[in-house]
Amino acid sequence: MKAAIIGGTGYGAIELIRLINQHPYLEVGSVVSNSQAGNNFSDSYPHLSEIMEHPLEKFDVDNIAANNEVVFLATPSGVSSNLVPQLMETGIKCIDLSGDFRLRSTEQYETWYKRTPADNKYINQAVYGLSEIYPEHIKNATLIANPGCYPTAATLGLLPILNGNIADQESIIIDAKSGVSGAGRGLSLTAHYAEINENLKAYKLGAHQHIPEIEQVLSDESGSQIAVTFTTHLVPMTRGIMCSTYLKLTETISTKEVVELYNEFYKNKPFVRIRPEGTVPATKEVLGSNYCDIGLHVDQRTNRLTIISVIDNLVKGAAGQAIQNANIIFGWDERSGLNQLPMYP
Amino acid sequence: MKAAIIGGTGYGAIELIRLINQHPYLEVGSVVSNSQAGNNFSDSYPHLSEIMEHPLEKFDVDNIAANNEVVFLATPSGVSSNLVPQLMETGIKCIDLSGDFRLRSTEQYETWYKRTPADNKYINQAVYGLSEIYPEHIKNATLIANPGCYPTAATLGLLPILNGNIADQESIIIDAKSGVSGAGRGLSLTAHYAEINENLKAYKLGAHQHIPEIEQVLSDESGSQIAVTFTTHLVPMTRGIMCSTYLKLTETISTKEVVELYNEFYKNKPFVRIRPEGTVPATKEVLGSNYCDIGLHVDQRTNRLTIISVIDNLVKGAAGQAIQNANIIFGWDERSGLNQLPMYP
Amino acid sequence: MKAAIIGGTGYGAIELIRLINQHPYLEVGSVVSNSQAGNNFSDSYPHLSEIMEHPLEKFDVDNIAANNEVVFLATPSGVSSNLVPQLMETGIKCIDLSGDFRLRSTEQYETWYKRTPADNKYINQAVYGLSEIYPEHIKNATLIANPGCYPTAATLGLLPILNGNIADQESIIIDAKSGVSGAGRGLSLTAHYAEINENLKAYKLGAHQHIPEIEQVLSDESGSQIAVTFTTHLVPMTRGIMCSTYLKLTETISTKEVVELYNEFYKNKPFVRIRPEGTVPATKEVLGSNYCDIGLHVDQRTNRLTIISVIDNLVKGAAGQAIQNANIIFGWDERSGLNQLPMYP
Amino acid sequence: MKAAIIGGTGYGAIELIRLINQHPYLEVGSVVSNSQAGNNFSDSYPHLSEIMEHPLEKFDVDNIAANNEVVFLATPSGVSSNLVPQLMETGIKCIDLSGDFRLRSTEQYETWYKRTPADNKYINQAVYGLSEIYPEHIKNATLIANPGCYPTAATLGLLPILNGNIADQESIIIDAKSGVSGAGRGLSLTAHYAEINENLKAYKLGAHQHIPEIEQVLSDESGSQIAVTFTTHLVPMTRGIMCSTYLKLTETISTKEVVELYNEFYKNKPFVRIRPEGTVPATKEVLGSNYCDIGLHVDQRTNRLTIISVIDNLVKGAAGQAIQNANIIFGWDERSGLNQLPMYP
Repeated sequence: MKAAIIGGTGYGAIELIRLINQHPYLEVGSVVSNSQAGNNFSDSYPHLSEIMEHPLEKFDVDNIAANNEVVFLATPSGVSSNLVPQLMETGIKCIDLSGDFRLRSTEQYETWYKRTPADNKYINQAVYGLSEIYPEHIKNATLIANPGCYPTAATLGLLPILNGNIADQESIIIDAKSGVSGAGRGLSLTAHYAEINENLKAYKLGAHQHIPEIEQVLSDESGSQIAVTFTTHLVPMTRGIMCSTYLKLTETISTKEVVELYNEFYKNKPFVRIRPEGTVPATKEVLGSNYCDIGLHVDQRTNRLTIISVIDNLVKGAAGQAIQNANIIFGWDERSGLNQLPMYP
Repeated sequence: MKAAIIGGTGYGAIELIRLINQHPYLEVGSVVSNSQAGNNFSDSYPHLSEIMEHPLEKFDVDNIAANNEVVFLATPSGVSSNLVPQLMETGIKCIDLSGDFRLRSTEQYETWYKRTPADNKYINQAVYGLSEIYPEHIKNATLIANPGCYPTAATLGLLPILNGNIADQESIIIDAKSGVSGAGRGLSLTAHYAEINENLKAYKLGAHQHIPEIEQVLSDESGSQIAVTFTTHLVPMTRGIMCSTYLKLTETISTKEVVELYNEFYKNKPFVRIRPEGTVPATKEVLGSNYCDIGLHVDQRTNRLTIISVIDNLVKGAAGQAIQNANIIFGWDERSGLNQLPMYP
Repeated sequence: MKAAIIGGTGYGAIELIRLINQHPYLEVGSVVSNSQAGNNFSDSYPHLSEIMEHPLEKFDVDNIAANNEVVFLATPSGVSSNLVPQLMETGIKCIDLSGDFRLRSTEQYETWYKRTPADNKYINQAVYGLSEIYPEHIKNATLIANPGCYPTAATLGLLPILNGNIADQESIIIDAKSGVSGAGRGLSLTAHYAEINENLKAYKLGAHQHIPEIEQVLSDESGSQIAVTFTTHLVPMTRGIMCSTYLKLTETISTKEVVELYNEFYKNKPFVRIRPEGTVPATKEVLGSNYCDIGLHVDQRTNRLTIISVIDNLVKGAAGQAIQNANIIFGWDERSGLNQLPMYP
Repeated sequence: MKAAIIGGTGYGAIELIRLINQHPYLEVGSVVSNSQAGNNFSDSYPHLSEIMEHPLEKFDVDNIAANNEVVFLATPSGVSSNLVPQLMETGIKCIDLSGDFRLRSTEQYETWYKRTPADNKYINQAVYGLSEIYPEHIKNATLIANPGCYPTAATLGLLPILNGNIADQESIIIDAKSGVSGAGRGLSLTAHYAEINENLKAYKLGAHQHIPEIEQVLSDESGSQIAVTFTTHLVPMTRGIMCSTYLKLTETISTKEVVELYNEFYKNKPFVRIRPEGTVPATKEVLGSNYCDIGLHVDQRTNRLTIISVIDNLVKGAAGQAIQNANIIFGWDERSGLNQLPMYP
């Protein structure tokens, strides 16, 4: 089955290509990049020399629909809201890696993204693609809003304890740290090597567009309106996200019991691994893989739970989860094309 | 005036030498390293070739006292508790960079450090050397317990708001991140390049020996017993500490007002810089300097304050503050030897 | 088919496991580590949690032979010279990633490795496993001396021009640069994060044990005794080797013609990619993959050829080439288990 | 004495400010940046908060001349060729950190820089500011062409052996490696964090504009026309240059004798340090300082000399050497403002 990739020269697209290359049922069909149409792919990315030699295409909805059965949109915010309606008319399955269809409230989108939102008609059809939580909806979706990188790590870390009804819902603080590839390939001073190497930076305090996305999931799942404090930091590394999440517990419970609760919650979920009591995961332990690893610690002194959840931002936080969602849609084993072990060291 | 340095081949000692080299009144006298006595200094540290060629000495209390007027102990935990008593008998001023004299409670020391504590007689004489907060005590001290790196960044960030009486004292969460030099020059897998490069690791959850030190300062200054949640992370960079601190406010206050409160609190303190509203500091902005930079953000949605405080762990978090304390003791300008600008980039 | 891995807790073994996990015909049988026998694998390497949970075994030749058909020895120098004879008696195929069987001259081994060499009987049976050059010998081998990381990059870069008979054989200079993982997981100051991060170090000038290995291959293939100048550098990154090789040309030839010569030489070799004129490869362009990429430049002013060859030291420079050799031995497609694309960025 | 800095928001200017801040006789007067005139300096560089608060100025030759006695031009190629003539008419001393006045041949400039060269009238007045080699000319100069970063490391490493008349002048190969700050603050894909982190890249093979500069110095000092092979590499670190230089010796000489020859050559030069036989310098050993450290190794097998020379590209390779030249011009101790020790680790 052929997959089209739109936004072909960004890091999301590159990672889709890497994973699709090892997929038993999918192969890359069209690769679209309006800005570099006509160029050979390996001119931009010499690591794909002799592997991906076809030229980048201009966006042409008929062409895409004729030659592919699924399309991954790995475009910046504000692009897929225009492309998805055209694509959906052709009946092709759309998996959107951008934020354009994640928020149900168009007002929220405008507030946080400072852009024109997508048409409500399409937003209503979009299924939020947090694979471990919404597999039943994903199965029947024609449009997937693939989750953001931070929201994936944050919500997978939080949902079991919220589900357990022992979290003080007003006490949630998420201290999130990301490698620099999350900022994409677009040039900016905050991704300029000499500025970010040997440096640690907090950014967008109280203003990150992933805040309403996290709150939407947590509120949906808990049944009550949840507001979180969420701070993002840029770490001098290329890949990896860690969320260190803090919340007050409403009951006394041991770390061991919390670990059990998490193991139970994720028991048939191959990509979530819960660390045993006394250990927490590091980002390198999931590098290049689709895992989300979670470690837990109850501080008896303050009755607070600390949750350490890690993902590779380009895999489980973007391209990997997109493939996982395609697998669910097409009824394949969820792990198809995603059996790469973490690369260590 | 000559200064002795004990623990001569660790990173703390090396940083003391760098700073003392530019000090107008201090110079390096004895450098003691029992493990490498007799060796030339620049054999271990070729960057000091033609600068520090004298041989490392064995610890000899009489020699040290005869040739120096102040001694900096940059030794691992559990060493200075034995050396300081001998040194103090000679009347020499002691500035201890280790944790041995920081905690007033010997029980706490045993619990968190898992070592035999120092003699209470000397603990009682020790002055906690947080230079901006305790200058009057430091002035008359003969033994300084130089603060830990994390506690320096954490408490300088927290004390103004605690002093303002608008913090919920039970709500304090400190998410701390450090470069790897904080672990010293001793070999270990967590400081092994291939393990920590391109990696982000949380460690010692609820078990870091700096927890009681932070709580002691906060409790002293607030007048009530404070327990914090404190989590430490290892970041793939050599130097720098950032504390991202979160607390609930008990009143409604704007970021602008909090910035004013901090500016007022630190108004005559040359090494603390408060960033204007809307910006927060990055660790590189203090690299190699004795500054502690602080940024502030009130989240109106949750009425929580986020405090970002950064230091260079080897300067303000160790050797720099030690020199600053020496300057206060000897009545020199607090900035003597500490006028290096941050090295950027 | 089951493969045993000896030296189970080093980086070579870890990389073998990553690759074998995606191999269509091989799977991991025994994993041997005398130092950690009995421990669970994922205790040392949590990235393999839920993937490799079997306990590490003690070395037991009968067990290994009974349960595996091939054994990979990823042990430090001086170990496999003792183990290989025992293993070979059982008839099991041995692929040795260490240097113990690479040099035909035991005197050279003693000179450069400063260790007791292996028994000549076994050295004589060993086939040097440079897969692109010696496939016919590898096919029938029972003992493979898998090439060193530097020699792989250096010789693959040099052999086409030597074969073309237009190189001044006395003029070869190889300036080699490696990431730090090449030094293994053993602790040492030169792999200590704070010492090597933000640092670039030349080491072992004129004394690296890979010098005689490179010279042996070059001399074998050119038919004359070749001595090279070879300098190694440690670069602050985890993976990757680049050899920048310089030699005087004995004829006038354009870069374009040299590129053609290289393309011709490697025409059916899937893992060697020659860059077109005007571009040279970077190490990240082969990261995590078994490729050796080569770029070429003739300086008309000095009639010198510069060859830039890059590999991932743990893949083509170790585990990947070992798997490639196993594939050749067992008659499988050379690329089996090695179809991972470079991970970029 | 006041110094103007032109090109005020680049890394060269920032480093000049750091060094001048500790200079006993110099202080920063005007800071010129046409692109950011009117802005506060610390808006671009928060690390200078409370230190450099004056606004950036537009270029105004009269203003500069009225308020300063020396001007440092830290501008990109092609800018100072226009500004210097105006400045020189006012009689102010000019120290140009760009390449505009380094090459005596305007043809060479056009060939390698692909720009319009400066007026010969000013080129003829320019003194090449390699401080250790041309102090007598520098002393009387009104216009200094401050050497490039690579040429400084390369020529300081080569001149003693050329002077010793035992080098084969046709055999010189310089394999140069640089940290990324050398590329400046201008955004580009080769300085984009995710592209260069964990990566090693060779660039501009046979085309680097520092080639004619190096050859000009070597030819001047040797008396014969010298052509070198010079290859540059980008290393994933912020600061530091290493030149690994190779040449054939025309006589048999030991490493020890070469070390002596170098020590003799640089005997009264405080910023050049020759490492003893058996050791070579690493870039971190000069970080943040004005040192050029050199290590030497004669390979008896090939009778080749390997020279390892390291500098901090922003200090000895730019701002530091500029200050050193100002010190020589004004008759101050060469080390004024340059007594910072290397920052280690």
